[in-house]
Amino acid sequence: MPKLVIGVDLGATKILYGIGNVAGELIYKNTISTQTEMGSTHIINTIAELINSLIEKYETDNEIVAIVIASPGPLSYPDKVVLNSPNLKWENVALKAEIEARLSRKVMVEKDTNIAALGEYYFGQNKKYQNLIYITVSTGIGGCIIINEELYRGSRGGAGEIGHMVVARGESKCACGQTGCLEALASGTAIANKARSLGIIDYNEIVKEIGDKARDGDEFAIKLLNDAADYLALGIRNLVNIINPQAVVLGGGVMQGLQDLWLDRISQQVLSAAFPLNVADLSIQVTSLGGDIGLYGCIALINNMEMKK
Amino acid sequence: MPKLVIGVDLGATKILYGIGNVAGELIYKNTISTQTEMGSTHIINTIAELINSLIEKYETDNEIVAIVIASPGPLSYPDKVVLNSPNLKWENVALKAEIEARLSRKVMVEKDTNIAALGEYYFGQNKKYQNLIYITVSTGIGGCIIINEELYRGSRGGAGEIGHMVVARGESKCACGQTGCLEALASGTAIANKARSLGIIDYNEIVKEIGDKARDGDEFAIKLLNDAADYLALGIRNLVNIINPQAVVLGGGVMQGLQDLWLDRISQQVLSAAFPLNVADLSIQVTSLGGDIGLYGCIALINNMEMKK
Repeated sequence: MPKLVIGVDLGATKILYGIGNVAGELIYKNTISTQTEMGSTHIINTIAELINSLIEKYETDNEIVAIVIASPGPLSYPDKVVLNSPNLKWENVALKAEIEARLSRKVMVEKDTNIAALGEYYFGQNKKYQNLIYITVSTGIGGCIIINEELYRGSRGGAGEIGHMVVARGESKCACGQTGCLEALASGTAIANKARSLGIIDYNEIVKEIGDKARDGDEFAIKLLNDAADYLALGIRNLVNIINPQAVVLGGGVMQGLQDLWLDRISQQVLSAAFPLNVADLSIQVTSLGGDIGLYGCIALINNMEMKK
Repeated sequence: MPKLVIGVDLGATKILYGIGNVAGELIYKNTISTQTEMGSTHIINTIAELINSLIEKYETDNEIVAIVIASPGPLSYPDKVVLNSPNLKWENVALKAEIEARLSRKVMVEKDTNIAALGEYYFGQNKKYQNLIYITVSTGIGGCIIINEELYRGSRGGAGEIGHMVVARGESKCACGQTGCLEALASGTAIANKARSLGIIDYNEIVKEIGDKARDGDEFAIKLLNDAADYLALGIRNLVNIINPQAVVLGGGVMQGLQDLWLDRISQQVLSAAFPLNVADLSIQVTSLGGDIGLYGCIALINNMEMKK
């Protein structure tokens, strides 16, 4: 029987879920809104129902080898408790245990950025890179480091919190309580806060609207987006000097929506300002997997485990 | 026969060389000044002579299993060419090939910060840490990451250049050409530049002098050293958020000279401002190996290789 993986990418605004085979082909996918305001129990019930519906539909003719959930972090390791997610408004939610109790099955829970990085590593354009940094720029900024072809979690699962790298001490207050974090300077939220004066209120439209204004030559929009891109370039340059990866892959809604305005600018700054040795064979690119990277990553997690056997 | 390792720690101001057994006991060590002004050929000749004198003295009764040189970086990998060292005033010096030609023997060359980190990992107080960041604060600031008990070099040997992590964009010009680098804000050179107004000219004395002034209550000295410590704490916090190591070990002449003034302040700031998950089991400490850490590291490099066999 074909081997399938069920994946759920839990985001603060939407839940992307689906099923695919272990070769990385998606068979079915769908998106629902997260209804954060209903609280964690409601969301966990919803996720369990979505998974059950996929099990019922596909298990007769296929072997479901894994159920994988991509969750916002910080996520404790190895017990996989969501410690606190300001965007989901969750604190100490035992996501893995709660879902397993409802399904009476094992599920795997992994930080969303880790999942995305594995998706990129196995199914993106970059299968060949041994050391890779994946950076998502969306509501917040997160990241994951793949080292020697393996997910690098750090000693407690906290590695990759690059949104809270301080690059400009004293500037812009961050939701984490500090100042000058990359997330406070270049995330979708940071851009939205600065863009309010343009009269854009709806967060979901902000990237498109401000991008379009910049493309139309609006000087304020151009400066705002250039400033954010320059901070991103600074953060990436720091990572390149510290980690010396072969590739930096960018994803997330904000990055994808602004790729035409940002990618060349960011690349040029990183390549010219990081150490020459560190950029000698560096590739900087935007993921080809788009918004489905989380689902590909859920499948990739299995590949990652299979390879380790 | 006892197995010995010859180690040479090439610094911009002095060359520390010696011999020890593979268990990490130093048998002989000595220091000479580097005479940077004589140029790379002179220095390479000197190193070769020092090594030859140790070979002649010790090889009759012992097996010399390795000759290891710790060199300033950036160092190309795997061919070990010193690409450019502003402090040594070297550009593209094929250190490994040049020494091997003079000795007619194989030598191992490794970046000094990598060597120091291995010394700490094998012979410091921290043998138990799987993931460790070593940071040296001396003339400049450098670092090395040990991941999963292995030296992490990055894709081209450039990993660990944490002195050029930008933490305060726009502030303080760095020798690398950028602004806001940690090295431009908190290294011995940075402190010396700011301390000129205190009338301290001799760089080698500056740490002692300004430290003593601060200990005596001089407000300018206190502020200057506190500012530098705060930048260091910021850089370490960034690394802790990105890498989530079990330990951050600090070394280098400036750090060791100012340990009483700096360590508690830095620790408190990192532990309070980094992500709670990332500091849950974090240890921040100053190396117990002192100025000999480079020699211990030369021996450790062999242990590292032996373990991989």
